[in-house]
Order: sequence, then C-alpha cells, then structure tokens
Amino acid sequence: MSWNERTAAGGEVARPDFERHRRKGVPEVILTEHKTVEQSLAIARRFLEVNGRAILSRVSPELQECLRAEFEGQADVEWLPGPRAAVLRRPGDEQPLCGGRVGILTAGTSDLPWAEEAALLCREMGCDVHTVYDVGVSGLHRLWEPLHHLLEEEQVDVIIVAAGMDGALPSVVSGLVDVPVIGLPTSVGYGLGGRGEAALLSMLQTCSPGMAVVNIDNGIGAGAMAGIIANRAAEARTARLTS
Amino acid sequence: MSWNERTAAGGEVARPDFERHRRKGVPEVILTEHKTVEQSLAIARRFLEVNGRAILSRVSPELQECLRAEFEGQADVEWLPGPRAAVLRRPGDEQPLCGGRVGILTAGTSDLPWAEEAALLCREMGCDVHTVYDVGVSGLHRLWEPLHHLLEEEQVDVIIVAAGMDGALPSVVSGLVDVPVIGLPTSVGYGLGGRGEAALLSMLQTCSPGMAVVNIDNGIGAGAMAGIIANRAAEARTARLTS
Amino acid sequence: MSWNERTAAGGEVARPDFERHRRKGVPEVILTEHKTVEQSLAIARRFLEVNGRAILSRVSPELQECLRAEFEGQADVEWLPGPRAAVLRRPGDEQPLCGGRVGILTAGTSDLPWAEEAALLCREMGCDVHTVYDVGVSGLHRLWEPLHHLLEEEQVDVIIVAAGMDGALPSVVSGLVDVPVIGLPTSVGYGLGGRGEAALLSMLQTCSPGMAVVNIDNGIGAGAMAGIIANRAAEARTARLTS
Amino acid sequence: MSWNERTAAGGEVARPDFERHRRKGVPEVILTEHKTVEQSLAIARRFLEVNGRAILSRVSPELQECLRAEFEGQADVEWLPGPRAAVLRRPGDEQPLCGGRVGILTAGTSDLPWAEEAALLCREMGCDVHTVYDVGVSGLHRLWEPLHHLLEEEQVDVIIVAAGMDGALPSVVSGLVDVPVIGLPTSVGYGLGGRGEAALLSMLQTCSPGMAVVNIDNGIGAGAMAGIIANRAAEARTARLTS
Amino acid sequence: MSWNERTAAGGEVARPDFERHRRKGVPEVILTEHKTVEQSLAIARRFLEVNGRAILSRVSPELQECLRAEFEGQADVEWLPGPRAAVLRRPGDEQPLCGGRVGILTAGTSDLPWAEEAALLCREMGCDVHTVYDVGVSGLHRLWEPLHHLLEEEQVDVIIVAAGMDGALPSVVSGLVDVPVIGLPTSVGYGLGGRGEAALLSMLQTCSPGMAVVNIDNGIGAGAMAGIIANRAAEARTARLTS
Amino acid sequence: MSWNERTAAGGEVARPDFERHRRKGVPEVILTEHKTVEQSLAIARRFLEVNGRAILSRVSPELQECLRAEFEGQADVEWLPGPRAAVLRRPGDEQPLCGGRVGILTAGTSDLPWAEEAALLCREMGCDVHTVYDVGVSGLHRLWEPLHHLLEEEQVDVIIVAAGMDGALPSVVSGLVDVPVIGLPTSVGYGLGGRGEAALLSMLQTCSPGMAVVNIDNGIGAGAMAGIIANRAAEARTARLTS
Amino acid sequence: MSWNERTAAGGEVARPDFERHRRKGVPEVILTEHKTVEQSLAIARRFLEVNGRAILSRVSPELQECLRAEFEGQADVEWLPGPRAAVLRRPGDEQPLCGGRVGILTAGTSDLPWAEEAALLCREMGCDVHTVYDVGVSGLHRLWEPLHHLLEEEQVDVIIVAAGMDGALPSVVSGLVDVPVIGLPTSVGYGLGGRGEAALLSMLQTCSPGMAVVNIDNGIGAGAMAGIIANRAAEARTARLTS
Amino acid sequence: MSWNERTAAGGEVARPDFERHRRKGVPEVILTEHKTVEQSLAIARRFLEVNGRAILSRVSPELQECLRAEFEGQADVEWLPGPRAAVLRRPGDEQPLCGGRVGILTAGTSDLPWAEEAALLCREMGCDVHTVYDVGVSGLHRLWEPLHHLLEEEQVDVIIVAAGMDGALPSVVSGLVDVPVIGLPTSVGYGLGGRGEAALLSMLQTCSPGMAVVNIDNGIGAGAMAGIIANRAAEARTARLTS
Repeated sequence: MSWNERTAAGGEVARPDFERHRRKGVPEVILTEHKTVEQSLAIARRFLEVNGRAILSRVSPELQECLRAEFEGQADVEWLPGPRAAVLRRPGDEQPLCGGRVGILTAGTSDLPWAEEAALLCREMGCDVHTVYDVGVSGLHRLWEPLHHLLEEEQVDVIIVAAGMDGALPSVVSGLVDVPVIGLPTSVGYGLGGRGEAALLSMLQTCSPGMAVVNIDNGIGAGAMAGIIANRAAEARTARLTS
Repeated sequence: MSWNERTAAGGEVARPDFERHRRKGVPEVILTEHKTVEQSLAIARRFLEVNGRAILSRVSPELQECLRAEFEGQADVEWLPGPRAAVLRRPGDEQPLCGGRVGILTAGTSDLPWAEEAALLCREMGCDVHTVYDVGVSGLHRLWEPLHHLLEEEQVDVIIVAAGMDGALPSVVSGLVDVPVIGLPTSVGYGLGGRGEAALLSMLQTCSPGMAVVNIDNGIGAGAMAGIIANRAAEARTARLTS
Repeated sequence: MSWNERTAAGGEVARPDFERHRRKGVPEVILTEHKTVEQSLAIARRFLEVNGRAILSRVSPELQECLRAEFEGQADVEWLPGPRAAVLRRPGDEQPLCGGRVGILTAGTSDLPWAEEAALLCREMGCDVHTVYDVGVSGLHRLWEPLHHLLEEEQVDVIIVAAGMDGALPSVVSGLVDVPVIGLPTSVGYGLGGRGEAALLSMLQTCSPGMAVVNIDNGIGAGAMAGIIANRAAEARTARLTS
Repeated sequence: MSWNERTAAGGEVARPDFERHRRKGVPEVILTEHKTVEQSLAIARRFLEVNGRAILSRVSPELQECLRAEFEGQADVEWLPGPRAAVLRRPGDEQPLCGGRVGILTAGTSDLPWAEEAALLCREMGCDVHTVYDVGVSGLHRLWEPLHHLLEEEQVDVIIVAAGMDGALPSVVSGLVDVPVIGLPTSVGYGLGGRGEAALLSMLQTCSPGMAVVNIDNGIGAGAMAGIIANRAAEARTARLTS
Repeated sequence: MSWNERTAAGGEVARPDFERHRRKGVPEVILTEHKTVEQSLAIARRFLEVNGRAILSRVSPELQECLRAEFEGQADVEWLPGPRAAVLRRPGDEQPLCGGRVGILTAGTSDLPWAEEAALLCREMGCDVHTVYDVGVSGLHRLWEPLHHLLEEEQVDVIIVAAGMDGALPSVVSGLVDVPVIGLPTSVGYGLGGRGEAALLSMLQTCSPGMAVVNIDNGIGAGAMAGIIANRAAEARTARLTS
Repeated sequence: MSWNERTAAGGEVARPDFERHRRKGVPEVILTEHKTVEQSLAIARRFLEVNGRAILSRVSPELQECLRAEFEGQADVEWLPGPRAAVLRRPGDEQPLCGGRVGILTAGTSDLPWAEEAALLCREMGCDVHTVYDVGVSGLHRLWEPLHHLLEEEQVDVIIVAAGMDGALPSVVSGLVDVPVIGLPTSVGYGLGGRGEAALLSMLQTCSPGMAVVNIDNGIGAGAMAGIIANRAAEARTARLTS
Repeated sequence: MSWNERTAAGGEVARPDFERHRRKGVPEVILTEHKTVEQSLAIARRFLEVNGRAILSRVSPELQECLRAEFEGQADVEWLPGPRAAVLRRPGDEQPLCGGRVGILTAGTSDLPWAEEAALLCREMGCDVHTVYDVGVSGLHRLWEPLHHLLEEEQVDVIIVAAGMDGALPSVVSGLVDVPVIGLPTSVGYGLGGRGEAALLSMLQTCSPGMAVVNIDNGIGAGAMAGIIANRAAEARTARLTS
Repeated sequence: MSWNERTAAGGEVARPDFERHRRKGVPEVILTEHKTVEQSLAIARRFLEVNGRAILSRVSPELQECLRAEFEGQADVEWLPGPRAAVLRRPGDEQPLCGGRVGILTAGTSDLPWAEEAALLCREMGCDVHTVYDVGVSGLHRLWEPLHHLLEEEQVDVIIVAAGMDGALPSVVSGLVDVPVIGLPTSVGYGLGGRGEAALLSMLQTCSPGMAVVNIDNGIGAGAMAGIIANRAAEARTARLTS
C-alpha cells in the first residue's frame, strides 16, 4: 500500500491583506480558530516580515507553544491570557499613538476576555484605552462614578460596553452619555439565549439611540469600530492644534 | 343537493371551571381569542349565572358588540379599551378588597394594554393596584421617584414590570427593590426579536435575583401571580391586626 | 346594563423625555406603531410645545389624517411617504446645521424607506446627508464611482449602508473605505431569512473590520449613531476653524 | 524574543456587591462558570472577609480542588456534589432562620442538581425547605400524597417545581394548589427542545394561573424568588405573633 | 397592447390519487389552502365522479360559496363550520362502518376545530368516534370520569388528545391509559411558542411511553393514523366473530 | 400649516442593470414586492425602452391594473396568473431559442405558482421547458413514467423539482436521474416548518448527490440556474452540429 | 476547615413506577443519561428485585463497567453496543411472547443505534421484530423487495422507519403500505438541520397519511408506540384463534 | 451473571449502492461520521472489491489508523489531511479524465477543508479542478485577476465558491461571471449564525441570479453537483470534437 498525503500547496492557501492597515486604518487580525497551526504560523511570519507586526486571536494552547518556539529571538511577543491573543512585533518597533480615546466597560468579570480583545486592537491602532470592569446592572449605583470619570476626565470619544446575560448595561449607558456606544454582547449566560443571544437581541432592540452592535464575542470588531471613530476625532483635534 | 352543517353540540364543548377562584384564589378568565363568538357568549353567561362575574380577555370588536347586545340590562360591564377586556358583573355586586398591594411599572407607553390586563386581574382579586407608566430605561433619572413612592408610601408587596424592546427595565428594578418582581415582556419592538422575544430572553437572563417571568403579553398571568403573592401577605397582615 | 370604559388617565400614560436632545444630541422620535392615535397626538403636541419640534415614525394612514386635522395652522409638517414619517415644526423654526457629513447607500430600490428614515434623523441632527441608492452587489461596477464621490468630494464622516436580501453590500463597502460603516439590514427578501434575518446575520458576521450594525429596519437607530459620530467630527473641525 | 503577559490588574476586575443581601434580601452567588479559577478564588475570599460567607455555583473540579487548598483551616465548607456548589462560612457562623417555608418538587431524579441549587439558596436565606423528588407526570397517582403533605402539614408559602422533558408537572401542580408556583425548567431531555427549551416553553404557555418561571437550570434564580416570597410572608407572621 | 394570460392547461395540473383509499385505507383529503378555487373545484369534481366522495379541508369562504353553487343537486354536502371542512357525497351513498373505535379529547374549547377535523376523517374511514371536549389540565379532577367512560364503556382502540398552550394533557393521559395515544398539538396559545410550538415540543418530549405525534393543527393526519390503528383492531375482532 | 412631501427624486432611486443579460445570460427580473407602484412602473418602462423587454414578478393587483393602463398599445404583455408575473415586450419582438432543455416537476398542485415562475424565466432565456405537475411522493408509481419521458424523449439537460410539505420528492428524483437537479422548496405546508422550512431543510440534507437548492419560493432563482446550465450544454451541442 | 458533603438522602431521590408495565403494557426504561452512576445502579437494583427485570438506555462506559461489577452472578445481562442499552434479568426468567409483529426499517447504516433501541423495547414487550437496514431513499429500487417481505410474509402490524438526513424514507414508505407507520428521526446529518431537525420536520410535514412521529433519536418511544399497537392487534388475533 | 452482546448481524447492516456511479455519474462516498469503525471498514472493503475504489469522508483519527492497518499492501491510498478524507484504489487503477472543468474559490484560508473535499470528488469524477484560495470579500481587488484566469484561461464550466462568516463572496462572484455558481457555506464564523448559518442564509438570499447552494460544509455535495454539470458540458464538447 502506498499512503500519499495530498495537500494544497503551502504558501498559496493564504493571501494576506498587507495593505489593510494603510487602506482602512485597522490592522488585519489573524483569526486562528479555524486554521491549522501550520497555516497560522506561516501567515504570522509573513505579516511580521512585511508589516513588522502580526496579531493573532483565539490562539489554541498548541499554537501558543509553537509561537514561542517559532519566533524565539525574532520577535517581541505580547500575550493576553484572557482573550488568548498575541501580538508579535519586530524587536524595537513601537506602536505610535494616534490620539483617539476609547472607554471600555464590562457588566461583569466574566466579560473580560472580549473586553481585553477590544482593548488590544484599540491600542494597536494607537488609541488610549480606559477600562472599567464589572460595573453591573443590578446595582446601578456602581455605574455613576466610573462613567463620570470616563466622560469628564478621560474625555473618551467612544465607549464599548461588553455585557452577557441580560445585555442591559449598554442600553442603560447609552441613555446617559453623549458619545457613540458600541454594544459588545458576550457568550456569558445560561439556559435559553445563554450563549449571548439574549444579550445581542436586547442590544439590537435598545430603546436608547446612539448605539450600534457587533456580533457575540467579537471584541476585535468592537475594537476596530471604536478605533476608527476615535482616531478620526483625534485627527480633527490634532489638525486643529497644529493649524 | 343537501347542505348540512354538523357542529359539536352547543353546551358540551366547554366545561368551565367554576370552582377555580375558590380553589386557587384566581378567577377564571375567558381567553376569547381562539373561540367563536357563540362559544364565548355561552361561557360568559354561565360564569355570570354561577359566579356572578365573568371576565373576558382579547375581545374582538365583533364580540364586543355581541356582549353589549346580549347582556343589556342583565349585567354591569366594565370595558378596558387598551387590553380589550371586559368584566361582566351581576348588578349590584362588588369585588371585596383582600388587602394585597401590587405595583405595576411600564417601560413605555406602548406597554399599557398588557399592564392594564394585569391590573384588571389584580383588582378582580381584591388587590390595591398602583401603576406608574413610561418610566423608560434610557433616562433612568425618571425611575427613582416613582419607585420610591411605590415602596415607601404604597408599600407594595410585589411589582410587575412590563417592558418590550430591550426588556432591560425589570432587571434594573429588580436590582433596586426588596420585593419580588414579575417580569412581563411585551410584543413591542421591531426587527430580530421584536415581537417580545428579546425582552423575554433578556428577562430570563437577568443578573438581578428575585425576579421571575411570564410569557410575552401575558398580562393575565402576571396579574394572577402578583395577586396570589400580595393576597398571602395581606392575609398575614390582616390576621395580625385582628388577632 | 351599564357599560363603563375604564382607561388609564390621559396625560399620565406617557412621560416624554424632552431633555434627550440636549443630553444626548439625538432628538426623541415618537415610534407610533404600538401607540393609539390619541396617545401619539398627545405626545406630539407636548413635544411641539416644549421643544418646537416633534418627529413621528411609522405613522399609520389613520394617524396621518389626524395629524393634518390636529395641527392645521399650528405647525409646519414635513411628510416622508417612503418611511411614513413626519416632522412637525413650530412655524418659522429651522434646524441649524452642525456640520456633520453622512453618506447613505442602499443595495436596492426596495431599501429606500429605511434609508430615508435614517436620512431624516441625520438632517434633524443638523448633518449634511448624501445619498446614493440602488448600487447593488451583483454588478459591483456600479459601486466604484458613487463611493469615490462620497469619500473624496463629499468627505463624509461615516457611511450607512442599507441592504436586505443577502446583506453583502455593507461588507464589501467596509472593505474599501476608511470611515466607520453602519450596517442597516432591511426586511427585504423572501423565504428563509427573508425578513431581514439573513442580511442582519451576514452583517454581524462581516469579514471587514470597522463596521457595526443596528436592528432590521431600524433606520432611526442607524441615523442616530451616524449623526453622533459625524457631529463629533464636525465639532472638532469647527473648533479648529474658529480657533 | 521577549514574551510578556499583559493582564488586567488583579483586584480591579471584579467589584463584588457586598450590600446585596442587606439591600435585596438575597445573598450574592458567585457564578464561577465563566470566570478563571484565580478570579473565583479572589472574589470568594473577599466575600468571606466582608460578609463571613461566600456562595459559589457551577464549580469546576479544578476550582473545587483549589477551594480545598486555599481555604483550609479558614472556613467551613458545605459542598453539594449534585449542583457542584459550595458555601464557605466563617468558622462558627450560622445562618439565622427567617421563617419562610419553601416546598420543592421535581418531576424526575435527573432534575435534582437544580432543585438542590434552589434549596441551597433558600436555606442560605433562612428558609425551611421541604423537598419531594421524582413525583413524575406519567402516573399522577404519585403526586397527591406529597402535595397534600407540603400544603397541609408543612404549610409552605411557595412551591418550586423543577421539570425537564415535557415540562408538564408545574402546570399540573399549579392547577391544584393555592400558593404561588415557580416553574424551574431543567436541561433534561433529548432531541428537539431537549436542552430544556420544551420544558421552558410549556411552562411559559401554562393554562394554570399563578405560576411564573425562571430560565433553564436557573436553580439559584428560582431559589431567590421563592426565598423573597416566603420570607415576606414569614415577616408578616412573625410580626403578628410578636405584636 | 395585447394582454395574454398564459396558464398551465387545466386538467393536467393535478393527478389525483383515486386509489389511495383502496391501497392505504385512508381517503385522500383535498387540502384547498394553497390551491386556487378553480383547482379545488376541478379536483373535487373528479373525486366525486370516480370515488363517489370528495373531502375538502381548510375551505375558504369564497370556495364554500362556489361549492354550493357548483354541486347544487349533484351531491350531498356535509359542512363542518369549525374546521371549515366539507364532505361531498354522491346522493344516496353512505359510509359503511368498519368497527374501529376512536376516542378524541381536547384540553380546551379552542382546540375544537382540529379535533373535529380528526373526527371527520375517522368517521369517513368508518370508525365510531367518541369525543370529550375541554377536559383541561389545570383541574385534573375533570379528567377522570370521561377517561374512564372512553376506556371502559366505549372501549376505544386509540385516543387522540388535542391540546395547545402547554401541551401537557396528552402526556398526562398517556400515563394513565393502555391504548396508543396520538398527540395533536394545536396553534392555540400566545407569546413565545404560542402558535403550537410549545405544545408540539412538550409532546415530543413526553415522559409517558406509548404516544406519537402529528404536526400542529394536523387533525387530518391524526385522524388518519387513529383510523388505521382502530380499523386493524376492528378487522381482527370482526374476523374473530365471523370465524 | 404647510404639509410638504419630501421624496427621493424619481429616476435616481433605481439604477437598473441593463447589461445583466448580456454579461450573465440571465435577464434582470423586477421583484416588485418591496417597491412602490410608481417605482415598478418607472423601472419597467426603462427596461422596455432599453432592452425591449421587462419582466416583473410578484405583481400586486394594483400594479397589475396600472401595467394595463400604462402600457396600453405600447407593449405585448404575457400575464401569468399563478405566479402573478408579467412579461412586457416591444411589439413584434420575439425571444430567440437557445436550445437548452429544462424539465420541471412539482410534488403537488399547490407548488404550481413557483414552478411557473421558473418556467417563465427559462423560456425568457430561450430554453425549451417541459413540465410535469403533481407527481407526489406518496404514491411513487406516479413518478416513473413522466420521469422516463423527460430523460429519454425530451432529453432535458437539468431538472427543477418543486416541493413543499416534506420536500422529499427532489431527493427521490435526484437518486434516479443522471442530470443535475435543482431543488425548489415551496411555502406549502402547515404547522412547524410549514412555510417551506421543512422542505428546504430536507433538500439541504439530501442523501442523493447531484442536487443543489435555491431559497423557498425562489422560482426565478431556480429558473436562472437551470437556464444557465441548459444553455451551456446547448451551446456545446450547437457548436458540434455547426462545426 | 471542615468540608461537608450535603447530598439528598439516597433512596428517596427516585420513586420508580413499578406498576407501569402492568398498567400501560410498556416496561419502564431507566434513561441513565442525566443520572449519576449511583442513582442508576440503585434504581436498576430495585427494578430487578421487584419486577425481575431492569432496562437501561444511554449507558455511559463508566456505568457499563459498574453494571458488570455490581450485578455479577445476580442477573443475566443482554448488552447492545449500538444503542448502549442493557437488559438485566433475573437468572432463568424469560420474556413471554405476546404475538405482536413489528417491522423496522432504516434509511442508512448510521441509523442503527436507534433502530436497535426500538427493537429492544419491542422484544421486551413480547413482540416479534423484523428489521431491514440501509434501504436508502436515493435508489428506491432497494426498497421494494424488503417492504414486500415485511408486509406479505411477516405480516407486520406496524412499521417503524428510522431516518436521519433528509428524513424522506418514512414518507415514501407510508405512501406504499396499509399499516400504521411510526417515523423515527435520527440525529444523522450535517449543517443546518443536521442534528435530526430536518428529518423530524420533514416527517411532521409528510404528504402521506397514516404516519405519526416521535422525537429525534427516541428509539424507546418509537418501540413503545409500535409495541402497544402490535400487541393490541395480536390480542385480537389470539382471542379469535382461541374462541 | 452472563453478559451477552447482541448486535445486528455484520454484513447485513449496510447495503452499499455499487451502481450509483454508473447510474448517476457520481461515485458513492462513505460518510463515516455516524458509523462505527467496523462498519466503515467493511463498507470500504466491499466498494474496493466491487468497484476498485472507495472514498471515505470525515475520517476519525482512529479510523485513519485502522485504514492503514487494514489495507496495507492491498490498495493505494490518497489521504487529504484538510478534509480528513481518503481514497482507496485498487493498485494500478487510475481515474480516467472526463473533460469537465471546475473552478473552486474560497473566501478565506479557513474554508480549505471543504473546498478540498469538493475538489476531491470532482477529480474522482474525472474533472480538471482549478483552485484559488483566500480571495476575500474585504478587499475585492484581490478577486479580479484570479477570476479572469479561471474564466478566460481555464474556461471552467462551473465555479464552486466556499465561504463562511458573512457568506458574501458567492453573491459577488455570481454577479460577475456567466457560468453557474454553486455556493458552499462553511462553518467558519463566531457568535450568532457563526456555524455557517449566516453564510448559508446570505447565499440563499442572493441578489445574483445563476447560483444554487448546498448545505453547510457539504463539500461532497458541491463537488457532485459541479462534476455532473461540468461533465455534461465536456461530453458535448467531446462529441463535437470527435464528430
């Protein structure tokens, strides 16, 4: 018997979009969840070579180990255990600041991984990120003070609100602030609607104007939207100061 | 050709449960939505004869007209245009008070029909009912004062919170009060989850303990649950006062 | 027989949020769909008196007639037959411009009512609105030129893309532009997922970063989000120019 | 290569609500399912320190081991293997009785974990709890005697009925008793609707008035609602006795 | 302009299965809901000519009028207003009895149309049909006596149980009897699962063995299944008596 | 009061794709369902002027009347009452034949409107269309002969099989033929899955290879796919004959 | 630290229904899936003691090992590896035959476990069971011969048809036979509807009269229904022969 | 104790359809996912013996090992690690070419396994397969060149487009090409609709005519449909060339 493996030729299975950051202002994030370890490593290497940075999300423990082994001595790695994300950077490189200011709130402690995923992307887009976690909706007294801080002192341009379960917090926040709100539903919950569907639906049905949503657990998407909004505002501010 | 109608024999198609109020403390409500006009009238007549009262919900305009014609001079009728409900009462009869105290809140004006349906049943169970409508969730400043009034001055035993759209209000209320809360989702909304599913799911996923829910638009069910809870508390209070 | 109507007392069923525009930058829109004609008229009158303007959406033909009769000689009315929306304005009042610039695209002709609903709200927030309708996704050659016009000549701050059916256009647009995109799924379609669910899901699953979505047919919500984003950018520009 | 872990700062990711028990009458339960072991331990420790008690639900085997190791000699632990819940208590502390009386029924043996979760919370709220398990709906003869016992001898203030599969038992029970019933659907079943959806829907559609429901497997929520109802009744009884 | 209608040629659009009754023991029922009036009339006429009988279900008022006009003097018509069904019969023809015995129960009055649809088909298959309507599940005391009558006195071979709402009655009945039970969920209900989905799911999840179900409102299907089962039993009994 | 209608400017709301037939081989069909009468007429007129033909589907009775009035003496109209579709053609024009051969089967009489919609588009693409209606799946003996005719005598290149209800026929057919099969689920049915979802799902899950599906009631889509397949085969045959 | 396990008292958590077989003609089957090993063993032991037989379904590998160890030398065990079911029998006991005749078909090889589960229960009810596996629907030529054998030679009283994927086989079979058919959908499939939902829906929508269904993978339920039907027919036959 | 395993007799549980390739032009593929290892091996052996080839899909690691061991020295095995598929071939046999030309595109790298599954089947049907992977939809500039290559140079007869997430690529492609397109949704995604439902729905709702779809991840089904279409075109071409 002969046993022949027939695979699609290596380098050709992926056509990374190296120009996205320049074209869109958002760096491409390698969603590794549905890729093989080999594919993820190959794509990461190419981004590192071309752009000096590679961002990987939803990294499996196996891939995490391979990243360590593969890029030893070749890249600085920032590892976020919560969202299991990694940023590989050409040694010595630094992300320049763009001036955008993003606030991120979570309803509970369990929403952290996706809030951190969003924070990661905003920082990689050069934004200042201010986070307040576990402000709850059952006990709104915990909400006033941090919200006031974000708006008055940090003067954020946009707020991401991550919430699972009943998904009520983004609606409550959006009713109180005058900046755009991005609802980030998370897969925290139980029973019917408990994988984030209840939270997503509640946000889609919000009574509070000035809010839009991304899909369940899509911290990257929330971060990208917030980063674009914040950086445009920053761009205008900068222009004003320098003109 | 002969054309013969074959119908199930009139009186036998319904077996009303005249004893429910005595057995359960909740009067039977005739849900007329899926019944013919003839069936609804016949059942109402029998309740009026046996119990001195008949309560009908979801009354069609056609049935409304027939009620007028059928019971002229035989019954006092209270008609609620919002929920399209009617209470027929033997002339001169009055609902004795039981002492239970029920608070009812709605998130918006559009939730009224079902809130009124709940109020109707509570009143027919002998409860005092206190309603505050359109307290919203986008703009929580509108919530504090009426909530304080219900708890401190009216000293309600239980609160029904009706909400459609994002269904966030019951969770917010339940996080602030120390009485049981009954979430009543309403079919107010649009798009995905807009027939009350989002509101129901959000309430089922509530982060606030001490809340249970009934089905979408089930004002009668919310009222029955609230009435039983309030009247048991009243019973204890009365016993205390008279002992 | 006595027939007594028992209704909730008129003025108390609604607690309009007259301060929302000042607090949030978004005027309150009266969603008349789940209200009685009497409720809608009463709320509109109060907004007109207090704020000098009332915006009503999803107006039924019956309510449309009553609006004409009720406000004859008392208000200027702008009527949009597509989305069945009305703006009542104190005679002589005008909406001051804020400087925000919003682009609105639709995939097909059928998406117009909701695109116009969004445009209405943006204009009432003082934005310049630029619309391009029916650019399709089957035949992308129709997309390049209008997109270029919006970005380069009109220099919009944000783009709303309305699409039903496959909901593919917002993803395509978001992959090509460097401003935030708001996906507005519409209930245009047929068969499974044809009331906008397919479009909404496709937008929630977008491969293109920098997009967030609102619920199906929620033109008002898309307009509010876009208006807030655009006016913040405008505010910065204005400050820059006047400083 | 440098490999730097970037985590959210430890103590700040959770803001426990130590006042909930006092404000609401329901102790906060730490839902550990979506938290890391470190987060769960830290939150438990703070509750133990501040309130003298910590309740944890949905405890993983890994967390169970860590609880043993972490709190050795510092707390009394009650462990419920069915619902995988733990109560940590300052040595020597005891839960004072409040006088509320709660009955708990299950349709089958498989519903036990969630019934025990509810019983746990009721006991931690100071209620007497009376349980009857596996009374079935196919063979209603098994139901009469235990139900009579609960109502006449134990005189419970409220009944929780846990059921998976067809979810029929709560409706049957609610039709027979004069106390409020809380339907607790469980994820016991198979095929379509078999993760508790059929049971939940059937309870939401109940023909029997005087019942409200919580989400699938939400034993904690059912217990909290029952405890509040029962303790209010007890409070009235106590006042009566002592006045 | 020429305006030409192009229709599929008349007689060829339907190929009625005249042999089904002989082959299968179940007469073909013309489901008129999705057919034009012309198609329904043409098919009915052919069945009347070939088999001496035509059964039509879900007859629109318009079709009802046309049936009257079309078959005047040519057929005996039995009309059931509840299920809106009609049986056309060659004058003088009679349905011979087959000896099968079918019991039909409904949970409420509202379930009648579909119970009657089932009864109709059973009678057209030559069965004796015994019906008991509105036996409820909230108040099981109403169930014992009629059930005993069906089993002991009428000695039915099979029982159809129609129920909407919670769909609990078929499970309760199936747990008590020793004949096969056919669950017939009906579209009676409200809110989530209220078009019969809750009832269907609950029946599919039944804890009671010896029950199978048909689709929501499929009285014809329930009747066909019951008729086949009952007539096979009758056949055996007859053979026994005559052998 | 001034009442001003503000509409999007007429001709600009639609950008018809006049080149689609040339580019794609499929004429554009105006889906009028979500358009106003004015929009539909305007688009139809432009297609008639530019391409000499306009195809409209899902035509409302109101639009039908307007078509008559509008195009009197200017176009030949073919009207299909089943699918409510219209073909407007410049007087004297004729659709040239392309040689493709398409077979269309339906499971029942009720599936006709969508089968005719598919047939219409195939004919407008120049195909020969052979239809066999109501071949059923309960009684497969009715299937053999027409299937043999389609394959052996008409030698069709592709078969569309329209079916609602259980959606079983396409799988059965696909298991027997050696040409590609297109499953066209229709919204014929009742109860759970009865708007075509059951039929669509069953076709998507087919055990028979060589079948693909279109959405529920999408006769136009099925026709377009079949027409492209058939005409490519015809092109090859023609080339062969003429070479 | 003290670590105290608090469990519900052993024997009281289950109340087995030992009388079901006598009352209903169907033996109780212990669904072990949601029970602990200890609960399953205890219940099995009690059935073995009282009834001389215990039937367990969905047995985990762990429970399988415990059954071996626990009942060594005390019971005869029949083990079915496909459905992972076990029958424990008092040594020497035998299931008496009742004369019912059941046919079981499967569409594919993958449907075997549930077909065997059904066969097991029928045999334990004393029926003769005749099985034909993998008769497919794509290639109906494989169906005729085995179907003829079941009907003419084995003269079965009822046929169970198990199918996953498209679920088309039961409809095809039901259209061809004159005995009742029980559709048993299985969780074999992929993609949308692939956990048996497509099969179940297709069966619920069947065009063929004389079929009812059980839930997905509910082999036990299909067997119970078939066994009751078959044994009633057998009872009549036996009576005939002996009279 | 006796422990007796009772299994369905070996060879009889499967009735492979050896004639399918001849009858239908598509080889039968053994979907091993729901079969035991023993069943899969037995069926594979029989196909190898009778047809000289066996194709297995969704092969578990355990089965993969057994295939190696079982067919050592008896068959040539082609193994595709992506889709975990295997082709066993009688040593020396070769698949003759039929001339059909199939293009396969994927939106992302993650869609590869199912694209390769489709490619495998097309090659086994004798087609030339041309693949282009990861052409994306966010950044359409990457699409033009490969599409042009497929159409102009390879002159493919049909294109399969695999896409997960938003599922937008097939609609975009279908709007640009004049060959039939088969949409292959994949289970790549996250959150609501993320197991391929969003992609499938978007494809079912496509605005672009000339596309049909298969179920999520059904690469085999897409390949079979494409292979049949392509080979028919090839047959015509061949006939032309040789005539």
